[in-house]
Amino acid sequence: MKLAVVGVGLIGGSFALALKQAKLATQVVGVGRNAANLKVALERGAIDSIAPDPATAARGADLVLISTPVAQFPKVFASLTDSTALITDGGSTKRDVIAAARKALGKRIAQFVPAHPIAGAEKSGAAAASADLFRGRRVVLTPLKENSKESISKVDAAWTACGASVSRMDAKEHDAVLAAVSHLPHLLAYALVHEVASRRNSEQLFSFAAGGFRDFTRIASSHPEMWRDICAANRDRLLDELSRFSKKLDRVKALLDNPAKLEKLFAEARAARDRWIRSS
Amino acid sequence: MKLAVVGVGLIGGSFALALKQAKLATQVVGVGRNAANLKVALERGAIDSIAPDPATAARGADLVLISTPVAQFPKVFASLTDSTALITDGGSTKRDVIAAARKALGKRIAQFVPAHPIAGAEKSGAAAASADLFRGRRVVLTPLKENSKESISKVDAAWTACGASVSRMDAKEHDAVLAAVSHLPHLLAYALVHEVASRRNSEQLFSFAAGGFRDFTRIASSHPEMWRDICAANRDRLLDELSRFSKKLDRVKALLDNPAKLEKLFAEARAARDRWIRSS
Repeated sequence: MKLAVVGVGLIGGSFALALKQAKLATQVVGVGRNAANLKVALERGAIDSIAPDPATAARGADLVLISTPVAQFPKVFASLTDSTALITDGGSTKRDVIAAARKALGKRIAQFVPAHPIAGAEKSGAAAASADLFRGRRVVLTPLKENSKESISKVDAAWTACGASVSRMDAKEHDAVLAAVSHLPHLLAYALVHEVASRRNSEQLFSFAAGGFRDFTRIASSHPEMWRDICAANRDRLLDELSRFSKKLDRVKALLDNPAKLEKLFAEARAARDRWIRSS
Repeated sequence: MKLAVVGVGLIGGSFALALKQAKLATQVVGVGRNAANLKVALERGAIDSIAPDPATAARGADLVLISTPVAQFPKVFASLTDSTALITDGGSTKRDVIAAARKALGKRIAQFVPAHPIAGAEKSGAAAASADLFRGRRVVLTPLKENSKESISKVDAAWTACGASVSRMDAKEHDAVLAAVSHLPHLLAYALVHEVASRRNSEQLFSFAAGGFRDFTRIASSHPEMWRDICAANRDRLLDELSRFSKKLDRVKALLDNPAKLEKLFAEARAARDRWIRSS
């Protein structure tokens, strides 16, 4: 199989490395904005050649992975209108990506099987890519009614070959779920670090921050452009989550006067988290 | 040196193990509410004997460590009024602890040198204790004007012997700093997990939560009673921090309409965090 990867970062580079390791991809062509990053991808064997644009990369490809920040998807889809390749993606939001695909691909929309590998990390770029990134992680497909069973199976098989556990979901549901358990926490982590960094005594504050703060804020070291795009694309769901979270914080604030109920809430949260950790 | 530990949990047990390993403590007596936990502490060699109450434990002790949840400190101090031992503590808040000490100890207040080992973990109890818990961690002393230089030095030496980096700070400043970088993040993590756990589709939400969510919420697996007490004791500072954080969240929310500025905020947060990680 010949694979084209548009955006050879953590996700794109890892997909290429994993499919090569699984001997599913024999040749990978990469496209990207950052020449130095593409060079790293070449050196690491994630890609075998570089194409100047998505249209050239897709020529003769069996599968195209789009794994740029999601705001670039409309432009990428627009340059793939002549391609007959199967297309999948690594975008963290799905409604906007599907809308962009429909707009650009029109009647060829069946070629696109949307996917979201839930395998982010605070590291980015081809240098951070790994053939094992998706091993044991979830990949959500949000297939379109136009997709043929065969196309869905092929995309499913590719992500499965990366070691991922593939499931399917409606795009709307996907965006709501991810807003709660991924997009909101990222926003909170960025906000907290920014708040601490903005203080006059920020140096002192950081110097007394410990392991709890480090782990809580790990995701605030994530790729700013990627997260800008996710937040913009999933703005409505994120606003829903922010509003629910603010209400919860108001409740917790009120409980600072009621130690017994505050402890109960903490204990319920701990029990829920511990159950989740045990089961995952 | 004979050591008495009131509350032989993660902090108390680790202090005992570390001072024994450093050959500073030759004999350790433990007091606690939980007989099973004290048995674990005995079996692990953190303590050599069990006393029925703090007064008995402190009899003949050179140093007493109080490491119960902070709401129990008033009662513990009240039972130490006859002791001549040097006292230190492991409380995460300092103004309330000092006020309780002053009230109970009166003219003997000079015996108490307040300390906060910044070495929490989401695990608790004697089973989680380790001689290495404080190695490379910070311990903040908030000495009182009544403390003699000699008393402060002895307490400093004990925490230093545990491998900690000891510094000194005013109690008021301590509580403000810790509210920002420890107490608020704990509250946010508990609130987020509670929110997700309260949803009708909580099972689905948890099943799509990944590594970012796991690390962000690690501190929501912390000891509920301990954190209830910290939040109640440092309520005023925590309310300050909640109010600042809400304002920051409102700003981030407004920036969801302004991708360029949102990306700038994310990038500033990431840069600040990365600087901190490199320097720590």
